[in-house]
Amino acid sequence: MSTKHFINDPVHLVESALRAVTLTNPGIGLDAANKILYIRPRLIPQQLKVHLISGGGSGHEPSFAGMVGPGLLSAAVAGTIFASPSAQQIRTAIIGRVPHQSKSDPESGVLVIVMNYTGDVLNFGVAIETARAEGTNVQMVVVGDDVAVGRSHAGKVGRRGIAGTVLVHKLSGALASMGYGLTQVAALAQLVADNLVTIGASLERVHVPGVRESSTEYTSRLAPDEAEIGMGIHNEQGWYRASNTAFSDLIDTMLQYLLAQDDPERSFVDFKTNPENVVLLVNNLGGLSPLELGGIVSEAALQLKQTHGIRVLRVLSGTYMTSLDSRGFSITLLRLVNTGIDGLSLLDLLDYPCEALGWPSSVPKATWEAKDLGIQEHKVVTKVENELSGLKSDIRTTEMALVAALKSVIASEPDITRFDMIVGDGDCGTTLKRGAQAVLHHVSSHHLTGDIVVDLAGIVPVVENSMDGTSGALYAIILNSLVRSLRSLAPGELSSTSWAIALGKSRDALAKYTPARPGDRTLVDALYPFIEVLEKTGDLKKAATASMEAAEATQGLQAKLGRTVYLGDSGFEQIPDPGAWGLARFFVGLSGYEI
Amino acid sequence: MSTKHFINDPVHLVESALRAVTLTNPGIGLDAANKILYIRPRLIPQQLKVHLISGGGSGHEPSFAGMVGPGLLSAAVAGTIFASPSAQQIRTAIIGRVPHQSKSDPESGVLVIVMNYTGDVLNFGVAIETARAEGTNVQMVVVGDDVAVGRSHAGKVGRRGIAGTVLVHKLSGALASMGYGLTQVAALAQLVADNLVTIGASLERVHVPGVRESSTEYTSRLAPDEAEIGMGIHNEQGWYRASNTAFSDLIDTMLQYLLAQDDPERSFVDFKTNPENVVLLVNNLGGLSPLELGGIVSEAALQLKQTHGIRVLRVLSGTYMTSLDSRGFSITLLRLVNTGIDGLSLLDLLDYPCEALGWPSSVPKATWEAKDLGIQEHKVVTKVENELSGLKSDIRTTEMALVAALKSVIASEPDITRFDMIVGDGDCGTTLKRGAQAVLHHVSSHHLTGDIVVDLAGIVPVVENSMDGTSGALYAIILNSLVRSLRSLAPGELSSTSWAIALGKSRDALAKYTPARPGDRTLVDALYPFIEVLEKTGDLKKAATASMEAAEATQGLQAKLGRTVYLGDSGFEQIPDPGAWGLARFFVGLSGYEI
Repeated sequence: MSTKHFINDPVHLVESALRAVTLTNPGIGLDAANKILYIRPRLIPQQLKVHLISGGGSGHEPSFAGMVGPGLLSAAVAGTIFASPSAQQIRTAIIGRVPHQSKSDPESGVLVIVMNYTGDVLNFGVAIETARAEGTNVQMVVVGDDVAVGRSHAGKVGRRGIAGTVLVHKLSGALASMGYGLTQVAALAQLVADNLVTIGASLERVHVPGVRESSTEYTSRLAPDEAEIGMGIHNEQGWYRASNTAFSDLIDTMLQYLLAQDDPERSFVDFKTNPENVVLLVNNLGGLSPLELGGIVSEAALQLKQTHGIRVLRVLSGTYMTSLDSRGFSITLLRLVNTGIDGLSLLDLLDYPCEALGWPSSVPKATWEAKDLGIQEHKVVTKVENELSGLKSDIRTTEMALVAALKSVIASEPDITRFDMIVGDGDCGTTLKRGAQAVLHHVSSHHLTGDIVVDLAGIVPVVENSMDGTSGALYAIILNSLVRSLRSLAPGELSSTSWAIALGKSRDALAKYTPARPGDRTLVDALYPFIEVLEKTGDLKKAATASMEAAEATQGLQAKLGRTVYLGDSGFEQIPDPGAWGLARFFVGLSGYEI
Repeated sequence: MSTKHFINDPVHLVESALRAVTLTNPGIGLDAANKILYIRPRLIPQQLKVHLISGGGSGHEPSFAGMVGPGLLSAAVAGTIFASPSAQQIRTAIIGRVPHQSKSDPESGVLVIVMNYTGDVLNFGVAIETARAEGTNVQMVVVGDDVAVGRSHAGKVGRRGIAGTVLVHKLSGALASMGYGLTQVAALAQLVADNLVTIGASLERVHVPGVRESSTEYTSRLAPDEAEIGMGIHNEQGWYRASNTAFSDLIDTMLQYLLAQDDPERSFVDFKTNPENVVLLVNNLGGLSPLELGGIVSEAALQLKQTHGIRVLRVLSGTYMTSLDSRGFSITLLRLVNTGIDGLSLLDLLDYPCEALGWPSSVPKATWEAKDLGIQEHKVVTKVENELSGLKSDIRTTEMALVAALKSVIASEPDITRFDMIVGDGDCGTTLKRGAQAVLHHVSSHHLTGDIVVDLAGIVPVVENSMDGTSGALYAIILNSLVRSLRSLAPGELSSTSWAIALGKSRDALAKYTPARPGDRTLVDALYPFIEVLEKTGDLKKAATASMEAAEATQGLQAKLGRTVYLGDSGFEQIPDPGAWGLARFFVGLSGYEI
C-alpha cells in the first residue's frame, strides 16, 4: 500500500475532482456547496419524467459523479472520501437539483438508487422522508450485490453494494430516458438489483489521503503472496486471503462464490437454470494496469464458458466503481431476465446510448449482434532464401563456431542484464539470450547444408521471431543485409576478407536505419572495429579482441542514443554498453575456431 | 513500487489481454501469433482508403490495441511488455491485416504512426521498407511529444513519444474515415505531431511482471516526499525530482516546461501567440485513482487560465496511454492550428465519432459548443425552527453543560479513532470531533436564547452540516426528532423526566431508520440505558454512568450491523464500539452539571 499522493488534502481533492467533471463535460452543473453534480436542464431528454439520483462517499469515481448525463443519472451527491453525503445534501439534490416533477402525473418523480451501507441508507432515507413530506414523489432502491460476506455474517444488514450497482444505474437510466414512469423504472431497478452478484479481490488495502500514515496499520497488510477475496470498496476486510494461489484458481474461487447453488451462505442468483443469458462486467478497482485487467477479463470469460457452460452475451470491462487506487478488481454477473415491459430486454437497455463520461465507451448493439463481421487476412508471402549460392563452408566447423558464439552470449546474460538494469530497461540480456537459444535450437533441429547463404538465410527468421526490441531490429537488418551481400560474392570458399567485405555492407545498411555511430555507446561500437580489423588482418581472433576492447571502452562513453540515464547520470560511465558487450561476446565465442 | 500482480507471467498476460479486446468488442479480430488486432472487414467505413496502423510495446493499454476501431486505427501491433514488436509482426500487419489497397489510386494506402523510440522506429522502419518493396503504399509519421528531455540531452534521438500520440491517432483517424487520401492524412498526422507537447510526473517506478524483484533496484526508488517529473513510460528516468513540493507548484513547473518560450531546451510549440485555441489532455499513467486524476485536471485547467491566459476549448481526461500501473499522470497540450483541409478544424476531427473501446467516452460537439445549457436550481426551503416553545432553560447552566459534554467528546477523539481503526473505517472519532467543534463554535458565536427548543433547533443544521457518515445521520434523526418531541411538551421548566420522555420519542424515531438495537454494538447501546435510567431515577449522573458502562460492555459484543470485522475476527471483542463510546462520553461530560 502506497501512502504517496499528489494531492494530500482530502477536502480539496474531492472538491476539485467534482469541478473536473464540469470541465470535461460542460453538460454537467455543479452545486459545490452541496457536492451535487446535475445534468444541465437543456440536455434533459424531453420525454424524461423519472429522474435518477444516486451518490455516496467519494473515492469511487467515476461513480457517481461521472455517471450523470442523458441516459443515466440526473444528479449525483458526494460525501467526503468513503463517507455518505449528509441528508441535507441529498435533500437539496432531490428537491433542488432536478426539475420539479409534474404533480398531476403520479408517474413523474425521482428514483433514488443507494448502495447498501448503513450510513448511505440512513442519510438517503432521511432525505427521502423529508422530500416526501414536502410533496415530492420519490422511490428508493437499495442495491446489495456483493456476495463476499455470506448470509449468516451479513445478518440484518444484508449484502453490501459494490460495482454491480452501475448496471442498476445504466439499465434503469435507459428505461427512464425512454419516457417510462416511476413505478416501472423503480421496479426495473429492483429487478436488476435482484439478479446481480459481484465479488472483488485485492492485492493491497488503499490509503485514504489525509489519514496519518501510522493509522493505516489498523488494516493488517497483505503478505507478498496474498490476495484478499471480498475486500470491500472502503477497505473493509474481505472474506478470506488466498495465499500462493495460482491466478486461475483465484478466478475459479471467485466464480464459485458467484455461481454455486449449493452454498447456503450465498447462491443469491440462479445462473444455472438458464446459462444462455448473462452479462459479465469486470471492474478495475482503481489501481490495476489496463493490461492486467485485460488478462482478468480473458480468464473470467474462459472459465465461465469452459467450467460453468455460461454464455456471456456482453462483456464489459473498465473502471466503473473504484476504491481509490485499489490494486484489485471485481467480477459482476447479471442474469438477463424478462423485464415484462413492452418486449424490452435488459440487453436493449444496456445497449441504449448514454452520455456520461464515467460510463466507458461501448460497442453498438449492431456490432454485438452481427452474425459475421469477417476476418482480415491476406497471404503474407515470405520469400524463402533457399537458392544455392555456391558459397561453401565446412558444416562441422561452421556449426561448432556458431554454437560456441551463441553459448558465449548465453553465458554473458547475467552480466548484460546487470549492465542494462543500470543504463537501460533491463531486457537486453534476456533478449540476446532468447535469440541465441532460438538459433541454437534451430541449428540442432535443422541440419546445415554447407551453403553458407542458405544456412544464414534460414537463421534470419529465427532471429527476427525470437528477438524483439532494439537489438532484435538491429540484428535483423545486419543479417538480412549479410545474406544479400554474401549472395553477391563469387562462388567458392569464403575467406576472412570476403566475410569482412560482406559485413561491411551490412554495417552500411544498418547506418541507414539508426543514427548510431562508433562512440554513441551502442552495439555499433563492437561491430565497426571487428569488421575493420578483420578486413585489415584477416585474423578472426584479433578482430574479436578489438571488438571486446571496444565494448569495454564504452564504459568511458556517454550514451547519445536510446534510453539514456538523465537523472544525475551518476555512475553509468562505469558500466559497459550491454549491447556492445553482447555482440563482442558473440565474436569472442566465434573466434575460438577458424571458419 | 509494488511488485505484486495477479498475473505474473508476462507472456500469458500480454496474450490474454489482447484476447480480451476481442471479447469486449466483437468488431475486432486477433492474429494471436503476430499479436495484431485489426478491425473486422465489415465494420470498415465504405469511403475509407487510408488505413492507420500503430503499435509498440505492451504495457501502454488502452494504447494501442484498444484504439482499433472505426474512426481510429485499422490495426495495432503489440510487442512484449515495453519492447517493440518485431519487423516481421509489423510487416504482417501492413501487408496481411488491413484490406489490400487499390493499386490504381495513389492516395489509397497505409499510414503508420510510431512513437519515437529507437526500437520502434527501427522495427517499423524495416517493416515499412519491406512492405514498400512489395508494392504497398505506406507513409510513416514518428511522434515525439515529450518535452521532459531537453534538446541538448535528446541530441540526435529527439523527443520521446508519449500520451499525446493518441491525439495523432484520433485526428488523423477521423480524417481517414471521412475518406481523405494518404497525402492529406499523413500531412495532418504530422501537423498534429508538430503542435503537441506532453510532460509526465510519477510518484514511483513500475514493476514489470516477470522481472525478478531484486532487479527492480536498478531504478532508484523515489523517497516518500518525491515526485519525478518527466519519467518515461518505460520507467526511463525523469528530468528531475521534486522534493516536498506543493502540488500546485508541481503543476506550475510542468506547465512551464510545456509553455515557456524562453527555455532553449524546450519551447517546442508556441502557445502564447494565439492562446485561444488549445486542447488539454490529462492522462492517467495507469495507477492513479480517478479521484486524484480529477484533482489534477482542475488544477491544470485553473493554472492554464489564470497563470498563462490560455483558453482550453476541450478538456480530455482519462486513461489513454499507460505505463502499466504507474502512479503518475501526464499533461498534453495541443495547439489548434488550421488544417488547410476543406474548412475542417482540428476540433471537428477531435469531436468526430469513433468506435474504439480504448478511446474514453466523449461529449458531443453540440454540448461543447452550446451557448447556455442552463442551471438547475429550485429553492430549497429550510424551515427555521425559531418559534418559541415556552420551554425554559438557564442559559449559563445549559451552555456550561453542553460545552463540557462537547469537550468530553473532543478529548475522547484519539480513543475513539483507535477503536474505529480496529473495528471500523477509522473516521468515527474525527467525525464526532468535527461535529462537536462545529457546535462549540456555534454556541460561542450565537448566544443561546434560553428557549430550549429554539436553541436545540439552531444546533440541528450545524450537526447535519458538519457530521457525515453513519453517526451524522443517526444524530440528525435523534436531534430532529428531539426538537419535535420537546415542542409537544407543555411550557415551563424541563425536568429530567421530561427530557427522558422526549429522548424516548427520539429513540423510537431512530428505530425506524436503523435495525440497530441494544446488543448490536452501535451507539444505540449507549443511548437506550441512558434514557431508561434517566426515566426511572431522574438522575443524570446515574444515567450517564449506565451509558458509560453499557459502552464499555460493548467490548464483549459481536457487531451485527455496519462494518464488521470478518477476517479472522481476532481481537475486536476487546475493543468497545467507538460510536457507543462517543455518545457515552457526551453524556458523562453533560452529567458534570445539573441542567
